[in-house]
Amino acid sequence: MSATESAVQKIAVLTSGGDSQGMNAAVRAVVRSALYYGLEVCGIQRGYQGLLNEDIFPMDLRSVGDIIQRGGTVLQSARCKEFMTLEGQQKGADILRKHGIDGLVVIGGDGSYQGANKLSKLGIKTMGLPGTIDNDISFTDYTIGFDTSVGVVVDAINKLRDTMSSHERVSIVEVMGRHCGDIALHAGLASGAESILVPEVPFDLKEIADRMHNNFACGKRHSIIIVAEGAGRGEDVAEQLHLQYPNLEPRVTVLGHIQRGGTPTPRDRNLASRLGDYAVRMLIAGESDKACGIIKGELSMTDIDQVVNTKKDFDHATYELALRLSQ
Amino acid sequence: MSATESAVQKIAVLTSGGDSQGMNAAVRAVVRSALYYGLEVCGIQRGYQGLLNEDIFPMDLRSVGDIIQRGGTVLQSARCKEFMTLEGQQKGADILRKHGIDGLVVIGGDGSYQGANKLSKLGIKTMGLPGTIDNDISFTDYTIGFDTSVGVVVDAINKLRDTMSSHERVSIVEVMGRHCGDIALHAGLASGAESILVPEVPFDLKEIADRMHNNFACGKRHSIIIVAEGAGRGEDVAEQLHLQYPNLEPRVTVLGHIQRGGTPTPRDRNLASRLGDYAVRMLIAGESDKACGIIKGELSMTDIDQVVNTKKDFDHATYELALRLSQ
Amino acid sequence: MSATESAVQKIAVLTSGGDSQGMNAAVRAVVRSALYYGLEVCGIQRGYQGLLNEDIFPMDLRSVGDIIQRGGTVLQSARCKEFMTLEGQQKGADILRKHGIDGLVVIGGDGSYQGANKLSKLGIKTMGLPGTIDNDISFTDYTIGFDTSVGVVVDAINKLRDTMSSHERVSIVEVMGRHCGDIALHAGLASGAESILVPEVPFDLKEIADRMHNNFACGKRHSIIIVAEGAGRGEDVAEQLHLQYPNLEPRVTVLGHIQRGGTPTPRDRNLASRLGDYAVRMLIAGESDKACGIIKGELSMTDIDQVVNTKKDFDHATYELALRLSQ
Amino acid sequence: MSATESAVQKIAVLTSGGDSQGMNAAVRAVVRSALYYGLEVCGIQRGYQGLLNEDIFPMDLRSVGDIIQRGGTVLQSARCKEFMTLEGQQKGADILRKHGIDGLVVIGGDGSYQGANKLSKLGIKTMGLPGTIDNDISFTDYTIGFDTSVGVVVDAINKLRDTMSSHERVSIVEVMGRHCGDIALHAGLASGAESILVPEVPFDLKEIADRMHNNFACGKRHSIIIVAEGAGRGEDVAEQLHLQYPNLEPRVTVLGHIQRGGTPTPRDRNLASRLGDYAVRMLIAGESDKACGIIKGELSMTDIDQVVNTKKDFDHATYELALRLSQ
Repeated sequence: MSATESAVQKIAVLTSGGDSQGMNAAVRAVVRSALYYGLEVCGIQRGYQGLLNEDIFPMDLRSVGDIIQRGGTVLQSARCKEFMTLEGQQKGADILRKHGIDGLVVIGGDGSYQGANKLSKLGIKTMGLPGTIDNDISFTDYTIGFDTSVGVVVDAINKLRDTMSSHERVSIVEVMGRHCGDIALHAGLASGAESILVPEVPFDLKEIADRMHNNFACGKRHSIIIVAEGAGRGEDVAEQLHLQYPNLEPRVTVLGHIQRGGTPTPRDRNLASRLGDYAVRMLIAGESDKACGIIKGELSMTDIDQVVNTKKDFDHATYELALRLSQ
Repeated sequence: MSATESAVQKIAVLTSGGDSQGMNAAVRAVVRSALYYGLEVCGIQRGYQGLLNEDIFPMDLRSVGDIIQRGGTVLQSARCKEFMTLEGQQKGADILRKHGIDGLVVIGGDGSYQGANKLSKLGIKTMGLPGTIDNDISFTDYTIGFDTSVGVVVDAINKLRDTMSSHERVSIVEVMGRHCGDIALHAGLASGAESILVPEVPFDLKEIADRMHNNFACGKRHSIIIVAEGAGRGEDVAEQLHLQYPNLEPRVTVLGHIQRGGTPTPRDRNLASRLGDYAVRMLIAGESDKACGIIKGELSMTDIDQVVNTKKDFDHATYELALRLSQ
Repeated sequence: MSATESAVQKIAVLTSGGDSQGMNAAVRAVVRSALYYGLEVCGIQRGYQGLLNEDIFPMDLRSVGDIIQRGGTVLQSARCKEFMTLEGQQKGADILRKHGIDGLVVIGGDGSYQGANKLSKLGIKTMGLPGTIDNDISFTDYTIGFDTSVGVVVDAINKLRDTMSSHERVSIVEVMGRHCGDIALHAGLASGAESILVPEVPFDLKEIADRMHNNFACGKRHSIIIVAEGAGRGEDVAEQLHLQYPNLEPRVTVLGHIQRGGTPTPRDRNLASRLGDYAVRMLIAGESDKACGIIKGELSMTDIDQVVNTKKDFDHATYELALRLSQ
Repeated sequence: MSATESAVQKIAVLTSGGDSQGMNAAVRAVVRSALYYGLEVCGIQRGYQGLLNEDIFPMDLRSVGDIIQRGGTVLQSARCKEFMTLEGQQKGADILRKHGIDGLVVIGGDGSYQGANKLSKLGIKTMGLPGTIDNDISFTDYTIGFDTSVGVVVDAINKLRDTMSSHERVSIVEVMGRHCGDIALHAGLASGAESILVPEVPFDLKEIADRMHNNFACGKRHSIIIVAEGAGRGEDVAEQLHLQYPNLEPRVTVLGHIQRGGTPTPRDRNLASRLGDYAVRMLIAGESDKACGIIKGELSMTDIDQVVNTKKDFDHATYELALRLSQ
């Protein structure tokens, strides 16, 4: 395809909001696909803030060499209050036009998508890619970074099991997920956690305390409780357990920002590569104001409006499975 | 559900053929789900050979404690010529009946499935789970172990990139996959390999040699060629390249059996857990002679006959993408 | 050597206090060396508490198979108040004698050593091995677990760097080390931390805040401050920095118990193997009440009294080097 | 110290021969220490070949930012025949003088040291740092990269154990070490290898075959034989074993170049940092033609002549220990 048949001629890419592993693979895919299809392509440093600062630079094949395996984002990220205003958005669109940029790929979460939505209304063709570890974006089964993040959590739990079973203790692990329990769920199933607390499912700490108590009575050498931050604080859970059974002295680990780092898994790199390429092809085809995702293994596109206004379903069947298997 | 409503009362589980990471998670899921639903459950050591040797033992919740994260298979595996004969199969079915076992879950590849197919014709209800790193089983998008194996390959390539770019060399990496290029494809996309040789796609070594030569001319500090064993030997590829461009001195790495080891990724553990549980539920529901798999994210079941007689499709779109992005 | 020439005929081994990676390799070495030299050998479960409970069992070659690579301790550990009393110690010595045990290897930290010291005065020949991640035992350059623990910290910091440089932030990492800053020092040097706070060196938070501020002014995309728990709480450091420079919004990570887990490094396994074997040989040679260690690469032995009463030197030269290189 | 009191004013650094993990940490230390002490510092790309090509560029603090954790060498490496001639060496010295460079730090193995030795005779002050995975340099207990390399081998063996014990097989692992069995020895002790073949110790394949045979008879589920390349080829060992016991079907893995890659361990980074800084300080103090190393934990310096003409001692005590513990 030559660029002259394309709906866009020069596109830009930025990363926004909290970073996630695989963002670099997505940037690489956007840049290389754009060049492959004959487009010009620019990077914007530090998200929407960088856009307003005109921190825009041309990218070529080599700009994205040797980054596919790196965590974080070479384009950096930042939050930007000014861009939440209409003036800010208008200024952003003007700057893009001034640079001859008619298409923009935004990699980030819901907040970042809303910026793309605004810019599309101001005449810039936009595509959103789901870059967040939380897996809390609807109309995609997986977000870029989620697989790696689950791996980081499971690896940490492996380490905790070593020491907790040496001392026969309950370990409480607080993981990310303010509105979405997917990290807790997938890491919990994979590590055989005895209890998984997520914002989507009500729980009863008394019942959990009883179960932990019985586990030790039945000869289990350790028990793991995973708590998504949206379901409560690990320290609070520990306190409740200890109050009910003073001989339980749970140890709490708050994994924090290490969940956002690490070399992306092959899965995340490949998802990012497929999505980045797809976003470019959809811009070329004249699409705009769309969020790209993967649904049942297939690439798909949804209106950004719909994505940001739809709450993601929780996978209750897998949740039940995790409990069934952790007896 | 009580076991009395179940089509099976006592089931067994075995692993067969080459082992793969996540087999233990599958065994754990089979055992714990069976117990949850009120069945008795036995393990069979060393695959069909162990069955013929009556190496059968009861399993309980604790038998599968602390194995979800381990590579290999606690049930071990073996090849068994005797079981390829009708006499062997009849003997196996008789032994199962003698032990009161009316259902069997077989975790392995195509060869293992055929055994399950024979036993089902002899009155044992059977279910097959796809346990092989090669991802070469049809009617499932992923096999248990594939994700981990790709991770092992990508990790090795990361290491090779370090040293190859220090010396500006072409690196040739031979990976597993006699009939299926999926490991090569997924690892190649994830590691940005410059060339991916798979049995499903014809290739021209002369054209590849030209490309490698040009890469260095354009300033690339290293190039990676991944070769699925079904597409040729790494050493032969190296020789051809060197013949054409004597200054290219490719280094060959044959990854071998390390691809079968390592702690399974969360993905593989979770896939194995879902499939193991599903196989038990399907046996209870009266199904038999079926291969379980995951298609477009959904658990599914297919007649074993159909699975072993259908060649898996190759994902040409992803193959093209990998090449497009590795410019 | 036959056991008849030995000063001991039957020995036991226990792990005590906080566990550390490599304890299993030490247990394995004690057991196998003892058997090699013709001794009988027992394991004691759960440290001194297990001794008082007579939780004592014979060990053979296979008891320690496949554990060299595992974190934690198969013998488990526990704290035991009763053993701090003279009555408890006398009871312990009596139980050992009752089982025909005349030698004991204790793997743990200072507290565990004191128990060994008491038992030796009651007629049991004892050897202490330094099993603790903190590297806070004198008369040994390295403790078993320290190398692995530093690796866990450095790996976590790698992950934090990814995300912190994406957002241009200061990251504060709180690591273990109540009385000894060695984990902070070695992890800080290895990860190029911009500041390392240890209990052994006074520091000025105002000066550190200035340095962090200047780093960003000079174009550094991230800064890492490592805080040994004995030097202060990460949260307090963050608060001080933010007070002085409100635009600095440091993120705090408390690594916690994951520092005690993970598969031991080859270094820790080999140190543990050498020390375990050495302890057995010294018991055979008639030594008692000694702490084994490695000093300048050589195995050595010191009176336990002296070890527990000597504060370990801090390596100020390496501390200065770390600062010099992190400009 | 101001640079005016220094014996050198402007130094350069290069990496030469096979690369090793930690070379980047050494380069970083040389550059930052040099700057700290008021010197100018240059990098030379591609070793001695780059010197002859005048591929020399100034380095500052930022040139070595974010490289401490990377494998390979940012300065790249190459072999250079021309520099083996007197003319080449003279040309190299002239080029250095032309650039005002009066001191040179060479990071590499024995061959690289000889180049430094020649240059020192031509008036350039030189220091050698032991950068090689093989640990085959005398007058240093450890070389930069050795610790990481052993870790890579042990990690691969962990993976092999998973699959080998599933199939009850002997695994033969061929590792690097043409003249020095240290990688085999340290990896073998750490992974509990049943047999370790090194160039420094004669061995009898018949006796080894008997041992492997007996291991399985005694219930061992797997056996590992590590072969340093200097002791023979893995394939040949496998063939001999199979000839003697046809039921033994050993699987051979040749680890190859992955042993040279991977993120350096904290140990290697810290050793490299200490040595890099030390080399700069010794140049400033007027030393030349010296190889830096670490002996019994202390930094030390030896005449290059003596280093390249002394064969390193093999640690027979540790070798015996490994065998004793792998029963």
